[in-house]
Amino acid sequence: MSPEEFRRQGHAAIDWIADYWASLDELPVRAQVAPGDVRRLLPASAPEDAEPFDAVLADLDRVVVPGLTHWQHPRFFAYFPANSSPAAILGDLLSSGIGAQGMIWATSPAVTEVEQVVLDWFAEALGLPAAFRSDGPGGGVIQDTASTATFTALLSALHRASGGEARVSGVGGTQWRVYGSTQAHSSLVKAAMMAGLGEDAVRTIAVDPVTQAMDVDSLRDAMVEDVGAGLRPVMVQAACGSTSTGAMDDVAAIAEVAREGGAWLHVDAAWAGVAAVCPEHRDHLAGVEAADSFVTNPHKWLLTTFDCSTFWVRDRAALTGALSILPEYLRNAATESGEVVDYRDWHPQLGRRFRAIKLWAVLRTYGLSGLREHIRQGVTLAEHVAGLVASDDRFEMVTEPALSLVVFRLRAGDEQTLAAMEAVNASGEAYLSHTTVNGVAAIRLAVGSWRTTLADVDRTWRALQEAAAAHG
Amino acid sequence: MSPEEFRRQGHAAIDWIADYWASLDELPVRAQVAPGDVRRLLPASAPEDAEPFDAVLADLDRVVVPGLTHWQHPRFFAYFPANSSPAAILGDLLSSGIGAQGMIWATSPAVTEVEQVVLDWFAEALGLPAAFRSDGPGGGVIQDTASTATFTALLSALHRASGGEARVSGVGGTQWRVYGSTQAHSSLVKAAMMAGLGEDAVRTIAVDPVTQAMDVDSLRDAMVEDVGAGLRPVMVQAACGSTSTGAMDDVAAIAEVAREGGAWLHVDAAWAGVAAVCPEHRDHLAGVEAADSFVTNPHKWLLTTFDCSTFWVRDRAALTGALSILPEYLRNAATESGEVVDYRDWHPQLGRRFRAIKLWAVLRTYGLSGLREHIRQGVTLAEHVAGLVASDDRFEMVTEPALSLVVFRLRAGDEQTLAAMEAVNASGEAYLSHTTVNGVAAIRLAVGSWRTTLADVDRTWRALQEAAAAHG
Ligand SMILES: Cc1ncc(COP(=O)(O)O)c(C=O)c1O
Ligand SMILES: Cc1ncc(COP(=O)(O)O)c(C=O)c1O
Repeated sequence: MSPEEFRRQGHAAIDWIADYWASLDELPVRAQVAPGDVRRLLPASAPEDAEPFDAVLADLDRVVVPGLTHWQHPRFFAYFPANSSPAAILGDLLSSGIGAQGMIWATSPAVTEVEQVVLDWFAEALGLPAAFRSDGPGGGVIQDTASTATFTALLSALHRASGGEARVSGVGGTQWRVYGSTQAHSSLVKAAMMAGLGEDAVRTIAVDPVTQAMDVDSLRDAMVEDVGAGLRPVMVQAACGSTSTGAMDDVAAIAEVAREGGAWLHVDAAWAGVAAVCPEHRDHLAGVEAADSFVTNPHKWLLTTFDCSTFWVRDRAALTGALSILPEYLRNAATESGEVVDYRDWHPQLGRRFRAIKLWAVLRTYGLSGLREHIRQGVTLAEHVAGLVASDDRFEMVTEPALSLVVFRLRAGDEQTLAAMEAVNASGEAYLSHTTVNGVAAIRLAVGSWRTTLADVDRTWRALQEAAAAHG
Repeated sequence: MSPEEFRRQGHAAIDWIADYWASLDELPVRAQVAPGDVRRLLPASAPEDAEPFDAVLADLDRVVVPGLTHWQHPRFFAYFPANSSPAAILGDLLSSGIGAQGMIWATSPAVTEVEQVVLDWFAEALGLPAAFRSDGPGGGVIQDTASTATFTALLSALHRASGGEARVSGVGGTQWRVYGSTQAHSSLVKAAMMAGLGEDAVRTIAVDPVTQAMDVDSLRDAMVEDVGAGLRPVMVQAACGSTSTGAMDDVAAIAEVAREGGAWLHVDAAWAGVAAVCPEHRDHLAGVEAADSFVTNPHKWLLTTFDCSTFWVRDRAALTGALSILPEYLRNAATESGEVVDYRDWHPQLGRRFRAIKLWAVLRTYGLSGLREHIRQGVTLAEHVAGLVASDDRFEMVTEPALSLVVFRLRAGDEQTLAAMEAVNASGEAYLSHTTVNGVAAIRLAVGSWRTTLADVDRTWRALQEAAAAHG
């Protein structure tokens, strides 16, 4: 592709996106395909000869779009949003054009320094403790996902608890214990599996049946019991905004117990943490000053195209202690001076792209005031949904609304609840997901897309009412 | 940003990239900044009010560009290339616009099925064994990096060797051993650290001093010795194209030893593997039919914007066995039918973007013939460099050229070699990296950018000759 051709095709790709977005409202939210349908439309082998880029664009329309569930659709309410905003998309595009590798400071200094600054900005914007900022012993880094952040938190915890032995001779020999509530994200168990501790090392703590928050007395009892049995607590995870219902663990109380047990405290606020850009939504993070690490995902609610999971540690030495390696070909004066940070030692990967540009672009082009407005819009729409649920006798709330997440059901029962949800999903009108709370089935409606309006929520509610009439 | 504004700014971002590329030839390859220089140009906090996107573009020129080492520069010869081609950039841009999450098939079917097809295409294009294709018990997946691929290979190996016990009760209890040569990439040791085995679990095998390939007899001896001492071989890594000199391990011979020892065979062809699109460059993969897993990085030499590391396994059950988790909210009919693949269980992360589009765009817009031409151009230029080295008495080759990598030095000695390299790097004229081979310092010149011409190589050589005159 010549430079002129790149400009032409680049403009066409931008226009394709704008046209795709304009068409979303008319598209069924959930893909209407069966397994193998997409595959069957593609040839068996790569082409021998070059095809024009237009052929790729044409196949997006012909093959890909019908096989997509449209996460950017204004009536996508399943899981949590994965907002991709114009500013973030263009920021990431620029990163692709620059094509720099930031594995260490020396391989392209701006990649590291802009990331440090943007993570400092963002920590301040969320009201996070100064200890997480890069001018002290802590610091922030962009991880790909919260799963990776939680995994690296566990590796840091093991490094600290083992006095550096884990990286040398492994995790065997000690019976480590990791704690999270029954509502902790599955990535906690996955982290324990990957770190070589195994699923059995995760002790699952009961929750309050109403709030779904961790029962901190049970945590203390479990830890005391484990220590008595010769086991070694290594990490406690507090969930601020659980995946199922948005439950908020009491970080301050958990911090106290973690401290007593000598365990690392990791706070998983993957979805809800970004709401702290609004001062009125900082309550749920109370106690975070005592956390050893904290993760929240701008790639969910906060408009930053996947992947962008912001992760901070109080003591970066534990993290880099667990992960550092220094092959000859990466030795350099800047690293040896100790004046720079080499992000390679903050995550599992070596190579790393310039992901900070997209978060930088979001923070600047929305401004903190614009981001607050975005978060408040999501919360307002969720309150509206909660009002609709209260106004229709066939429905009931299952938990209190949490920020922009509403969890409810049909009083008629589990089967009816799931059938009504499936009817809405199958119609393509909106897309919702399910969960189980205290053993009963529930529908999750997570607002948060920058495209969702009051009209979208009302339209979805009408579809649910019709489905309730048919299935309730 | 309104749709019109997105189009306008999107076109501006594309044009910024085209202009940046056009300016590369005039820019110093290596950043000319000291630690803190970039940081100092940025404000201490995020802005309260929205700024126009143009302000971000302006800061790219003012703050970012001077702080970049330009990986897309035609005279960037350090490390390995991280080629970002127009087709891949636009493919990835489209993925951002679509903004779909492919953690499981059901969350957006096309994300999974296009990836399966493209990985099948690519396996065929590289001449990889049919066992790696998705229509049997194996299959391919795009990992972010080769480091992650190697890590997941190790987790799969542990899963298989432990009969599924590792994921449940951890890796303690057995003294696992992992094998790689002294030239194995540092990600192997990092994988052992992350998996809970520790660095000490990696047994480093000597190499042939001339070829730098693993000494397979030493591997056999080490394994026999370890088994005799009650240790348990779990994985052997063969390097096809080592980072330092491009050394090629003998996969077939290593496979034999791995089989005898009951160990998983992982082939790390991160850089060199993509050369197998050319039939004449498949020799170095001979024996790969016996590998349990294989990784190569289209994000290095093969024009696919980072991140795109293609990874195949012969038995996907070992991989998903090590990594699967199934929380309630992700339960769905398609998964339960067994008819689909859920890529969440193929890597550490949960969320995943539609990375297949960029590789699909590269394979189609270059065509296999275009990709072969690109690889051959890199090899030809490297041969030309080797000829230049041979023609100047002050220089000598340190190892035979490997594909597009040339490793040489100044006969005058280590200090002179490094000083000459540093002089070229500091001038900004070209950018090279160093290594150590059999204890002596050497310069690595890795060709492979789609922008590099014969004139760029010659100009770099002249700069080296001048530096040699000054330092040799
Ligand atoms: C509370 C919580 N933690 C972690 C995750 C995992 O996110 P990621 O895909 O970034 O790993 C999620 C995803 O929904 C989540 O809700
Ligand atoms: C042989 C080899 N393996 C692995 C890697 C790691 O690559 P990545 O950054 O994709 O993890 C490299 C990087 O240069 C490499 O040369």
